Amino acid sequence: MVPELLAQGCRVIDLAADFRIKDITLWQQWYGMEHLCPELVEEAVYGLPELNREAICRARLVANPGCYPTATTLGFLPLVEAGVVDIDGLVADCKSGVSGAGRGASTAMLMGEVGESFKAYGVPGHRHLPEIRQNLSVVAGKEVGLTFVPHLLPMIRGIHATLYGRVSGELDLQSLFEERYKGEPFVDVLPEGAHPETRSVRGVNHCRIAVHRPQGGDTLVILSVIDNLVKGAAGQAVQNMNLMLGLSETSGLEAIALLP
Amino acid sequence: MVPELLAQGCRVIDLAADFRIKDITLWQQWYGMEHLCPELVEEAVYGLPELNREAICRARLVANPGCYPTATTLGFLPLVEAGVVDIDGLVADCKSGVSGAGRGASTAMLMGEVGESFKAYGVPGHRHLPEIRQNLSVVAGKEVGLTFVPHLLPMIRGIHATLYGRVSGELDLQSLFEERYKGEPFVDVLPEGAHPETRSVRGVNHCRIAVHRPQGGDTLVILSVIDNLVKGAAGQAVQNMNLMLGLSETSGLEAIALLP
Amino acid sequence: MVPELLAQGCRVIDLAADFRIKDITLWQQWYGMEHLCPELVEEAVYGLPELNREAICRARLVANPGCYPTATTLGFLPLVEAGVVDIDGLVADCKSGVSGAGRGASTAMLMGEVGESFKAYGVPGHRHLPEIRQNLSVVAGKEVGLTFVPHLLPMIRGIHATLYGRVSGELDLQSLFEERYKGEPFVDVLPEGAHPETRSVRGVNHCRIAVHRPQGGDTLVILSVIDNLVKGAAGQAVQNMNLMLGLSETSGLEAIALLP
Amino acid sequence: MVPELLAQGCRVIDLAADFRIKDITLWQQWYGMEHLCPELVEEAVYGLPELNREAICRARLVANPGCYPTATTLGFLPLVEAGVVDIDGLVADCKSGVSGAGRGASTAMLMGEVGESFKAYGVPGHRHLPEIRQNLSVVAGKEVGLTFVPHLLPMIRGIHATLYGRVSGELDLQSLFEERYKGEPFVDVLPEGAHPETRSVRGVNHCRIAVHRPQGGDTLVILSVIDNLVKGAAGQAVQNMNLMLGLSETSGLEAIALLP
Repeated sequence: MVPELLAQGCRVIDLAADFRIKDITLWQQWYGMEHLCPELVEEAVYGLPELNREAICRARLVANPGCYPTATTLGFLPLVEAGVVDIDGLVADCKSGVSGAGRGASTAMLMGEVGESFKAYGVPGHRHLPEIRQNLSVVAGKEVGLTFVPHLLPMIRGIHATLYGRVSGELDLQSLFEERYKGEPFVDVLPEGAHPETRSVRGVNHCRIAVHRPQGGDTLVILSVIDNLVKGAAGQAVQNMNLMLGLSETSGLEAIALLP
Repeated sequence: MVPELLAQGCRVIDLAADFRIKDITLWQQWYGMEHLCPELVEEAVYGLPELNREAICRARLVANPGCYPTATTLGFLPLVEAGVVDIDGLVADCKSGVSGAGRGASTAMLMGEVGESFKAYGVPGHRHLPEIRQNLSVVAGKEVGLTFVPHLLPMIRGIHATLYGRVSGELDLQSLFEERYKGEPFVDVLPEGAHPETRSVRGVNHCRIAVHRPQGGDTLVILSVIDNLVKGAAGQAVQNMNLMLGLSETSGLEAIALLP
Repeated sequence: MVPELLAQGCRVIDLAADFRIKDITLWQQWYGMEHLCPELVEEAVYGLPELNREAICRARLVANPGCYPTATTLGFLPLVEAGVVDIDGLVADCKSGVSGAGRGASTAMLMGEVGESFKAYGVPGHRHLPEIRQNLSVVAGKEVGLTFVPHLLPMIRGIHATLYGRVSGELDLQSLFEERYKGEPFVDVLPEGAHPETRSVRGVNHCRIAVHRPQGGDTLVILSVIDNLVKGAAGQAVQNMNLMLGLSETSGLEAIALLP
Repeated sequence: MVPELLAQGCRVIDLAADFRIKDITLWQQWYGMEHLCPELVEEAVYGLPELNREAICRARLVANPGCYPTATTLGFLPLVEAGVVDIDGLVADCKSGVSGAGRGASTAMLMGEVGESFKAYGVPGHRHLPEIRQNLSVVAGKEVGLTFVPHLLPMIRGIHATLYGRVSGELDLQSLFEERYKGEPFVDVLPEGAHPETRSVRGVNHCRIAVHRPQGGDTLVILSVIDNLVKGAAGQAVQNMNLMLGLSETSGLEAIALLP
């Protein structure tokens, strides 16, 4: 439908995955089907406002990011932009609530199957891997090496990304993150030592991030949480729409998290 | 009580942490108190049968392992023993059900606080870190570099350890693990491509392990699950008792997992 | 503090139970302590707007209702007012999420104790019994006979009251309820045959009610759901405040339920 | 298949509902299909050992009871047998974990739909209603009046039946229940004042019952819990098999509940 809508003068925010990956061959490999309008892929803007705000404002076609890619990209972004992390050995250990799997009838997602249990899935390869890798590679200016392991949490909403990267030397990480996200309405850099809970963003468009360097060693740990149905999906689409229409970026996104 | 019990001729399996760490200064630093019988630490055998079976059989005093250390050590053990993994950059991203925190009254562990949410905790440092590091360092013959991040799952029982390590070159990992644990009554190496669920070991003394090398890259992913209250605590104590008393190692531990 | 605040000219909405029961002896018996300002009990208005809207508007002191009493009273109210139900044998089988127990540290409310389980509690007598009985007796003009059984649900928010009463003869129950609550901003009478879910009111001040007369028999079944922390507590207090201050009754209470 | 199996000399325990209801017209009305072997219905023995032990021992064909009917019948049985309860106004307010709905793919039973929520279902009529009514009517010697409301709990295993009935005069209810179930291996009558938790029978074939008469009034409250997958299904089938084969009634059913 997208070519038709654009032809009619509509501007489109696509919540599906079709325009997220620039390399069409790679897209076809991960999604297992032929791409139906490859000619629009180049034009599409990847809709992560914290990365592409200016381009989103002017875009005709926005590819709304995946849920895992949003949490993971926002967590790694300051490190990769600053060039302070070894981009060959990034690890993203991610956990999602079951709503990430949608509402289609299935045995695998029955409460009797996924309640009171926890598992990894898609370790050999998940469709969000090339999306995250593309985001970080664009920023780094070269291909990054990333291992991405998604897991299924026995709860409904929320993604928690635990991100690992290696650094060396003295670094003021807290300031690096605070500076990068200063003024961002939907990214909260928590104080040093914090451990964000997924419930703290339940129902809201915020990403909460905490930065750790355990025992001052070489391995950083970044904790990044979002609500997969809001900042990881429909909320981010509203944020993009606000930008495209010149509205206040936070319009319709000012609720507070539902706790407990 | 331990010195008194030993003096009376009892043999002791200690489920607390007092005899798990050989370096008493390190123990005192992590546990924040003075050790009351340092003279017994040297004699105590670390009660992981898959590592120390012979010594456990003859031991007067066994230090029953922690829950995270059990899942993590069993997952890394074949790799470290075989010397095929870079021991400077190991990562253990671990997730535990709430029963790991015990039954003491607390606000933090109320269902209203931990239900439907997920978070990391103890990222700056958790008491199980020196225990895991000691286990792997003993096997490696030198100090390993390990980052350990525990998380709290909104469920009751089960630990899932997602373990990352870097390797190079061709390796038959599946065979390495199958050989190492051949004949072990309580370690199941799953077929290639598997993703163990914590519920598959609910109520039983088994550790289930799956080995992955995503896209044939340099980073291995080992998935290891146990029931924190069985193989991670009382079940392992029974296994140790069976060994110490010359009983069948599986006596009293032959239940099947409660599914769903 | 209440007498002091009133003396200073403040108007008070009390979320505790002190002013809910008019019979001070009865209150002392159920709450096990002496009442500290019995002289204010008579003046206090029971803050259920659907029952006492006019009096609340003028009140100096409002006793904000309990959570179970709110769901139960709203469910029985049209039947008792209309005099169509046998008031000697009412049954209220109620179920609450764990947040009803507050945030005090306790073993009984740990997730490890209440997760994946269900039980009744307080069957011999619960403090909300005299409160519900008072509400319905005032409406009926004589003492009602009520059995109230609360249960604890393994979830965080929500109350579901399943109410039973005996009737005889032809009755247009659906119209009775729709008429009674016509124009009420926070009571939704669902279409015939409906089964309200607690999640449909998660985070909002609404009470949703469905009316059933299974197989046309003598026993009615009324289903009534609220969010115990909103219509059952703070939301209802805001509704009362709006009335007392002459604001729009729905000010600050216009969010939509968080689903899923 | 049943006629064929019987013809081959097999004895059959049927876990489906085909042989539970003696009135074939009633069965066809509730199950919405034609009965395929009505000639066997009369012979079939309803497999509740606490009611029909002798007949089960000799039976060729046993109809294994439904889950709700097991918990409800065992709870009401002593009262109806003793003729002390008003059988015209019985109420069974029942709550089941999601495993009662089986493992078929469905949207309605996804964790995203049923987690963190609670609702009644089937209030206008549920297939277990005629089964429970038949059980109690057989015992009473005349038709009982029963209202049955099932609800769905956000958990996996367990049924809790809260049963209401009216009595008059002095009664030693505790003794009545203790006497009735004395010697029963799988029915535990709890001490006065108890509130059984479903987790206390998780994974085991027991039914736990507590009897209350709140404030000494006319309405009794019976609490009855089972594991719907054990005493409510496969465990009871094993119990029936043991009886049919002359084995110890508890063979294979001696596990202890998995707590927590």
